[in-house]
Amino acid sequence: MIRKMNSAEAGFQEALILLAFDNSTDTRVDAAVTEVLAAVRARGDAAVVEYTNRFDQLQAADIRALELPRAALEEALAVITPAQRQALETAAARVRAYHEKQLLESWSFAEADGTRLGQKMSPLDRAGLYVPGGKASYPSSVLMNAIPAKVAGVKELIMVTPTPRGERNPLVLAAAAIAGVDRVFTIGGAQAVAALAYGTQTIPQVDKIVGPGNAFVAEAKRRVFGTVGIDMVAGPSEVLVISDGTGEPDWVAMDLFAQAEHDEVAQAILLCTSDEFIAAVEASIARLLPQMPRHEIIAASLANRGALIKVGSLDEACEIANRIAPEHLELAIEEAEPWVEKIHHAGAIFVGHCSVESLGDYCAGPNHVLPTMRSARFSSPLGVYDFQKRTSIIHMSRAGAAALAPVAAELAYGEGLQAHAKSAEYRA
Amino acid sequence: MIRKMNSAEAGFQEALILLAFDNSTDTRVDAAVTEVLAAVRARGDAAVVEYTNRFDQLQAADIRALELPRAALEEALAVITPAQRQALETAAARVRAYHEKQLLESWSFAEADGTRLGQKMSPLDRAGLYVPGGKASYPSSVLMNAIPAKVAGVKELIMVTPTPRGERNPLVLAAAAIAGVDRVFTIGGAQAVAALAYGTQTIPQVDKIVGPGNAFVAEAKRRVFGTVGIDMVAGPSEVLVISDGTGEPDWVAMDLFAQAEHDEVAQAILLCTSDEFIAAVEASIARLLPQMPRHEIIAASLANRGALIKVGSLDEACEIANRIAPEHLELAIEEAEPWVEKIHHAGAIFVGHCSVESLGDYCAGPNHVLPTMRSARFSSPLGVYDFQKRTSIIHMSRAGAAALAPVAAELAYGEGLQAHAKSAEYRA
Repeated sequence: MIRKMNSAEAGFQEALILLAFDNSTDTRVDAAVTEVLAAVRARGDAAVVEYTNRFDQLQAADIRALELPRAALEEALAVITPAQRQALETAAARVRAYHEKQLLESWSFAEADGTRLGQKMSPLDRAGLYVPGGKASYPSSVLMNAIPAKVAGVKELIMVTPTPRGERNPLVLAAAAIAGVDRVFTIGGAQAVAALAYGTQTIPQVDKIVGPGNAFVAEAKRRVFGTVGIDMVAGPSEVLVISDGTGEPDWVAMDLFAQAEHDEVAQAILLCTSDEFIAAVEASIARLLPQMPRHEIIAASLANRGALIKVGSLDEACEIANRIAPEHLELAIEEAEPWVEKIHHAGAIFVGHCSVESLGDYCAGPNHVLPTMRSARFSSPLGVYDFQKRTSIIHMSRAGAAALAPVAAELAYGEGLQAHAKSAEYRA
Repeated sequence: MIRKMNSAEAGFQEALILLAFDNSTDTRVDAAVTEVLAAVRARGDAAVVEYTNRFDQLQAADIRALELPRAALEEALAVITPAQRQALETAAARVRAYHEKQLLESWSFAEADGTRLGQKMSPLDRAGLYVPGGKASYPSSVLMNAIPAKVAGVKELIMVTPTPRGERNPLVLAAAAIAGVDRVFTIGGAQAVAALAYGTQTIPQVDKIVGPGNAFVAEAKRRVFGTVGIDMVAGPSEVLVISDGTGEPDWVAMDLFAQAEHDEVAQAILLCTSDEFIAAVEASIARLLPQMPRHEIIAASLANRGALIKVGSLDEACEIANRIAPEHLELAIEEAEPWVEKIHHAGAIFVGHCSVESLGDYCAGPNHVLPTMRSARFSSPLGVYDFQKRTSIIHMSRAGAAALAPVAAELAYGEGLQAHAKSAEYRA
């Protein structure tokens, strides 16, 4: 059921490309999102209430019925078990400690003539956090999205999360309380994205929207980009395990399952130098799969996009990994540390047999929002830096301006921009 | 011709909003871009050559005729005047020195049980730089886009620039030579963006595309976002001058002109506490405008989107500036430094009468690619950090993994993800 491949065989490159995910937008999604964005922009609260009642099967009388009071978050903290609360608080503390090391500081320097140049860092004023309802409603995602914003100093963090048929997830609300979310609206879909992006009479406009969502949410975020900032557009989750044949086959099998259990299009791939170890992992998969509550999803995902791949060497495995640029990369290698520098493109690297993705998903400290679909080639894990922005500071001394005016004027005349030139020359 | 407003008058807020730019996508642009992206993705080089011949009125036989050899850049360096070359080199050296201070470093820390966490910085492998042809073809933009990429350590920088009817701009090519651009293709429009985003038989796929362009280029960039990284989608250029009534009215008038001369939708606004100074600036505008070669564009831009606004205090001016979040902000104030901290949202702040935008456009050092259309609320000047990306590093010690496994498992069971939980528990 999970395909086996060998990097030495003809057609390997092509077969590997077929395992990639095609993320084209569905035209029906496109049309629906266009309508919702325009309606919320034009009619504000009223449109948000209408769409929410229709899509989430609610009977809210007005927008006020869709805001959760602070007391609802506190209640959720009381409803979950003490063990759950303790786990959430431990995870939050570790995530906070790690992210505090990401804070970017303002800097400047002076030149000999007194000119001072630099960049000033500021937090965003207000951020919006989208949290899916239903099956993919994860309290860990609330922590991972909210804590970096708060560490950056974002003044107001507004969470939106749909409650289909009124169902609330107490773990999600408890996580929001622990992470310091300021306001919560029980709305979702493109209408929630529109409300945050444009603002309504009741819901304030935010400066950036983060958090995962379905195809409608993803398309809406893409469309409001520019009016507000957005985080990356996320695709299916991915893990790539590189193994030198050491360690426990059961561990590797379970790590592949952990990825595959997300949904049928998640991707779990093993690159291994040992035929014997691959056979052992295959046996572990066969033995362990029936025990898993989510075995149907896991089986479908492994069959759709999974692979056990024999490679000639660990160097070759690293090359393949750099082409795939996976979201999660596990180095299941006895002496793993030296291989880290060979990996150029990955969202997160888990080093050695004890560094398993699921620890990173919840509580190791680093963010679990990571670039998918090869975007680790150019983008980064979600971080505090996503909630900070820079302003350049240019303070020319009189002597500095006089010295540079002729340079600016020369270039400005060359570009046919005479007012630029004159404006500089006035300071000469 | 330039409107006068007073922040104390009724309707001021609404009037201010009317001066903002509406950046909706034209549906004809949308359809044309869809076609070009699909064609280049499907047919590669052949489609790029066809569109280039059609839109740029060329007769290129094949894609090789559309690549400029290195010698063409060297020739351009010999064609421009020595003064131009000197100015370009001075500007490049200052831009490089400033941007070297932006390089982000990898970091990590160890915990008591031996767990090591951190983030590794890497440069992008390959970046694409779009440079417009025709009127808006600016050598300074080549420096501002290319130098941060090279400082970051990008291995290959590919420039695309259309040459309508075969016209090349020697200053642009000279700037490319000075900035260290690796390859140049004389292609433009959505077809150039598509070629860089998807790769063709001849043009390699890049990891990120930066640089300004017309509506087709902007829409194409927006559409390929995700397949590759892009810089921000730029709107019309903007300046906001805050004046306390000190300094030279002619300087302020010329600074407004420098913004307005870009195009008819550029925005130049003065906020000033003194009626007398506003009147003096108005007189300067009337006297100086006829002398400007680009007076028609300047007059249209000032009439369309310009304003001279009387404010009650400098504090109020800063509040208005934060709402507008301008690309460029000049503090034309005698004692300007203390006001910097009141500005939360601006792309760049020019401090004091000598710190004029045109010095920053060319050679002060900071980047001239800045957030427009209020996006300074959430985004930053182009910088070295746009060509670097982060990978999280998670190296759990055996003890660290054992300590955290129960926390991860508790949260994973709470989310209904049993394989996540088991995968962590194996390490306990």
